Amino acid sequence: MKHNYLDNTPVAEAKQIFFYSLGGTGFKYKSETVPSGAACGRILSEAVYAKICSPHYNASSMDGIAVKAENTYGASELEPVILSSGQYVEVDTGDPLPDGTDAVVMIEDVSEDGEGNVRLLSAVHPWQNVRQVGEDLCMGDMIAPSGKKITPSLCGAFLAGGVTEVPVVKKPVFGIIPTGDEIIAPVSDPGKGEIIEFNSSVFSAMLSEWGAESKIYDIVRDKPELISEAVSLACEENDAVLVLAGSSAGRDDYTSTVISEKGRVIIHGIAAKPGKPAVLGIIGNTPVVGLPGYPVSAIIIMEEFVRDLVDIYYCRKSSQAETVSAVLSRRVVSSLKYKEYVRVSLGKINGEFFAVPIPGGAGVITGFTKAAGILEIPQNSEGIEAGEKVTVRLIKDKNEIENSLIITGSHDPLIDEVNNFLQKKNCGFSVVSSHVGSMGALSAVKNGQAHLGAIHLLDSETGLYNESYVKRFFPDGGAVIVKGVGRVQGLMVKKGNPCGIREFSDIKNHTYVNRQRGAGTRVLLDHLLSKNGISPDEINGYRNEEYTHTAVAALIAAGNADAGLGIYSAAKMYDLDFIPICNEEYDFIVNENYIDDDKVKAFFEVLHSAEFRNRLEEMGGYNI
Amino acid sequence: MKHNYLDNTPVAEAKQIFFYSLGGTGFKYKSETVPSGAACGRILSEAVYAKICSPHYNASSMDGIAVKAENTYGASELEPVILSSGQYVEVDTGDPLPDGTDAVVMIEDVSEDGEGNVRLLSAVHPWQNVRQVGEDLCMGDMIAPSGKKITPSLCGAFLAGGVTEVPVVKKPVFGIIPTGDEIIAPVSDPGKGEIIEFNSSVFSAMLSEWGAESKIYDIVRDKPELISEAVSLACEENDAVLVLAGSSAGRDDYTSTVISEKGRVIIHGIAAKPGKPAVLGIIGNTPVVGLPGYPVSAIIIMEEFVRDLVDIYYCRKSSQAETVSAVLSRRVVSSLKYKEYVRVSLGKINGEFFAVPIPGGAGVITGFTKAAGILEIPQNSEGIEAGEKVTVRLIKDKNEIENSLIITGSHDPLIDEVNNFLQKKNCGFSVVSSHVGSMGALSAVKNGQAHLGAIHLLDSETGLYNESYVKRFFPDGGAVIVKGVGRVQGLMVKKGNPCGIREFSDIKNHTYVNRQRGAGTRVLLDHLLSKNGISPDEINGYRNEEYTHTAVAALIAAGNADAGLGIYSAAKMYDLDFIPICNEEYDFIVNENYIDDDKVKAFFEVLHSAEFRNRLEEMGGYNI
Repeated sequence: MKHNYLDNTPVAEAKQIFFYSLGGTGFKYKSETVPSGAACGRILSEAVYAKICSPHYNASSMDGIAVKAENTYGASELEPVILSSGQYVEVDTGDPLPDGTDAVVMIEDVSEDGEGNVRLLSAVHPWQNVRQVGEDLCMGDMIAPSGKKITPSLCGAFLAGGVTEVPVVKKPVFGIIPTGDEIIAPVSDPGKGEIIEFNSSVFSAMLSEWGAESKIYDIVRDKPELISEAVSLACEENDAVLVLAGSSAGRDDYTSTVISEKGRVIIHGIAAKPGKPAVLGIIGNTPVVGLPGYPVSAIIIMEEFVRDLVDIYYCRKSSQAETVSAVLSRRVVSSLKYKEYVRVSLGKINGEFFAVPIPGGAGVITGFTKAAGILEIPQNSEGIEAGEKVTVRLIKDKNEIENSLIITGSHDPLIDEVNNFLQKKNCGFSVVSSHVGSMGALSAVKNGQAHLGAIHLLDSETGLYNESYVKRFFPDGGAVIVKGVGRVQGLMVKKGNPCGIREFSDIKNHTYVNRQRGAGTRVLLDHLLSKNGISPDEINGYRNEEYTHTAVAALIAAGNADAGLGIYSAAKMYDLDFIPICNEEYDFIVNENYIDDDKVKAFFEVLHSAEFRNRLEEMGGYNI
Repeated sequence: MKHNYLDNTPVAEAKQIFFYSLGGTGFKYKSETVPSGAACGRILSEAVYAKICSPHYNASSMDGIAVKAENTYGASELEPVILSSGQYVEVDTGDPLPDGTDAVVMIEDVSEDGEGNVRLLSAVHPWQNVRQVGEDLCMGDMIAPSGKKITPSLCGAFLAGGVTEVPVVKKPVFGIIPTGDEIIAPVSDPGKGEIIEFNSSVFSAMLSEWGAESKIYDIVRDKPELISEAVSLACEENDAVLVLAGSSAGRDDYTSTVISEKGRVIIHGIAAKPGKPAVLGIIGNTPVVGLPGYPVSAIIIMEEFVRDLVDIYYCRKSSQAETVSAVLSRRVVSSLKYKEYVRVSLGKINGEFFAVPIPGGAGVITGFTKAAGILEIPQNSEGIEAGEKVTVRLIKDKNEIENSLIITGSHDPLIDEVNNFLQKKNCGFSVVSSHVGSMGALSAVKNGQAHLGAIHLLDSETGLYNESYVKRFFPDGGAVIVKGVGRVQGLMVKKGNPCGIREFSDIKNHTYVNRQRGAGTRVLLDHLLSKNGISPDEINGYRNEEYTHTAVAALIAAGNADAGLGIYSAAKMYDLDFIPICNEEYDFIVNENYIDDDKVKAFFEVLHSAEFRNRLEEMGGYNI
């Protein structure tokens, strides 16, 4: 077994060393020429000058008659001027002024006498109603300088100035080489041990957003000689190369070895979390970046290093990401060893942004898709306390964040379904939901960190749902319960119930998958355990916690556990058997300040609508 | 001669009527399916659910050995646990957990005894170092709702969830039909009477920015039957149709007639300036918009009506344009007949935005390329006074506007050249220059509306340049003169000097083209006239004013005037003869608050650099 260790170079230092090393290679943009009409969005590599004037001849700016201005002098209503047929020429807008004329009388001011003469009631001065040569652009004028991003109207100005093609920065092309024995091209039915390779698509899309192109190579197996061959070819064919996975120092990690054999490894191992096992190297004059296999780690390295590479290629300053100041909702612990990049969701309530860290490791791409921003915690910090003001770098549109309905609390797929209905209705706002459990919902609503909370909390003394909890949390009022749906909770077990579980107490003898502390379903479990006189310690898997009904169902379907409490719709999705335990009330708690909020009202309108009832029936296990 | 009149429907009313009429046609998005990896930037037309869990099997999250967790219980440094070769399996990151194992011990914590046994110093709990099924995504989870704009990481999430293709909104296709007898496809050497057709390129680029595609048809001549045929075909082949030019009510304007024959003209004539002669119609179920021929008029109608069409197609709310509050630098007079769209440049000085209206009519596309924003003046307003606060809709990036060096005053092509050098050096800021003449420069700098002013003002009493003017404008100091360049002023005349102009006083007998009031060159003219005892009234063309040296040169080259004062570099550009009159000092005045501003310093560094001197020598007529 091979043991290797990575460096732990601080991010800023790694940048400095890598980009300095790259400085000697001449890594920089090349120019190409593109038709002006198709150049929108591209960056000029040279200044563009008008080749002709626009207009390039004196053109009538009206429909009317072209005249010599001095022939019209003195015309008035009392003493009209009469011009004979040789003294004027009919012109349309855009027509060249005939020789000997220097002004145009607009058609509305002309009256004919039927014999070819016209009568004018007012004079025109020289060049009146004429677009003189160069009115828009003069030959030799600089239309736009080098470095300018071409807008639609600039396309028009180039063409107006007789410039049919323009020199632009050739977009850099990044070769992307996915490596790994277990990865396969995207399919909908991978076999066991086959991992769908999606990182290349993500990075290609990121590069495209930054103004770069990419060339994705076929997957290369974990053999150093194959990887070496692929990297050599890619270095010839591209401006820069990304090698996906194999960037660490494990048994099958060959990226750094391959780079060091062909060129130089500048940095191997960065004090970033996630993102540590990255390789920054140069082969010939081509930068080669080894990216970690975990998608979130790799995205962080893409944003920190590869985005800069694109900017360096373009010789442009890195664009400053938009940031907001937000209150951190939950304590974040950080290691002194790394700069940490915490994915957070963001909401704006009562005029203040707050940031909620999103759970999930570097392998969880959905942790990134859900994130609205990144909270960067410096390497020398041990973390940040809840309630502190932090600066969050935005990855979502600020307007979208500001205009979101924040729903937190107990998980039910119906929240996503209501959101989908709202979006189909073009509601004009987003729904951001997080699964923090029913107890979390109460405190989030109380602390002003959510518009709505979803709860289903059984009071074991009264057997009633929700009300007593809300009274306890809001002793002085301030929150309103809005009825949601009834839903069936029960034990989910594998199809055909191979363990023969008949009633709740049977779970004692089998592995269980639990929900997180604070979840309503966890409260229900604890209530049922105590009612049945079972201690949590007797439950094998009590500490195996998941955040959603579907996650519990998925683990039972996979055989990781024999049973778990959950809702009928999740069991149905996974074709599990279901042993109903109780009907519960899944309700919403609303901070009373928001009960008339348009977004809140729109949410309940959908939830209580007839068409949504149909959707609930399809999902199964709900009653209204 | 045909006389027709347009309606004058207010913009908001025109929208209401047109879009209401369109409501019955079912004009709305269609769906198409695209590969998930290529879907970034597209809009989902349906919610997307995960088809498989991700991971879809229990996968090791480490390089190490897979074990049954309970076999490791109790392991410690004092009492290590020994596992024999049958009790563990070596696994790499991503490998499936072998049957009978439920945890992974990381490689760093394993030591071998050489005989196939391993020694563990600590225990693992079930599922430790394992990515359990569904850790990232659970089958059936909604990955994104309908209407969501697909991000790079969403592409990854779709693929991770086994979704290889996604339903997206098919981009609407707009057919664009350029019409006109005089227009030609872009060339660099149009003949007299030929107008380069660039509007279709501008509108195609605008549509692309809004998420629509376009199909540009061949130019159609001004014959109603040809236009009718083209419109019919385009209505069949596209989601919407734009007919360029011919939208007014003149002799050769057929758009409204063609639309009314095939369908319905909803609006003809909008109370917008520019933009009045537009047609909004429907043929069958296809919206057809007749756009004015002047580019700026058409751009306004594109932004006001066609952009909304794209949003209506997508069933999305129109995005709110970013605005800033700015001080208006100059009075703008507006007609009660129209809503007016004033192109303005924007600068930020001393923390405050100010807006400067850009001269030029609806035919001047460069008036739009230079604009940073649009000031909309409501129909019921007679205008806005200088100094008032106005809201400007941005068309440039706000950061770019905030980070601009504002130079105003006398025109010289060298300012654009310095800017080009700065951009090539990747200076990180833009240079915004406007030609308001030397006198305008003094007041702009005094009023804090420019960082720098360019001046060349001859004091006719002393024969010296600039200093006395600055003293008069800044009696208490506050501004500094920075020496610029010396340059030669003279009379520009046609190549070969056909009028035989030998000295200044000869201009009396010929047509002249003048510079605008306040320009240093105008001050010079007036000084020369008075010195030579010539009255302005004796100069034929004294009132024919242009804003730049190149414009004056262009008009002399075109024969619109026989002579004009200007700088040598302009005469050289147009291959004119040049009769030197004087050497003048073209200097810069800097508000003393900005003398240490980085942007100001960077500007002068280039201006005074050796490499820039080379450029000035190429241009000719300068001395330093």
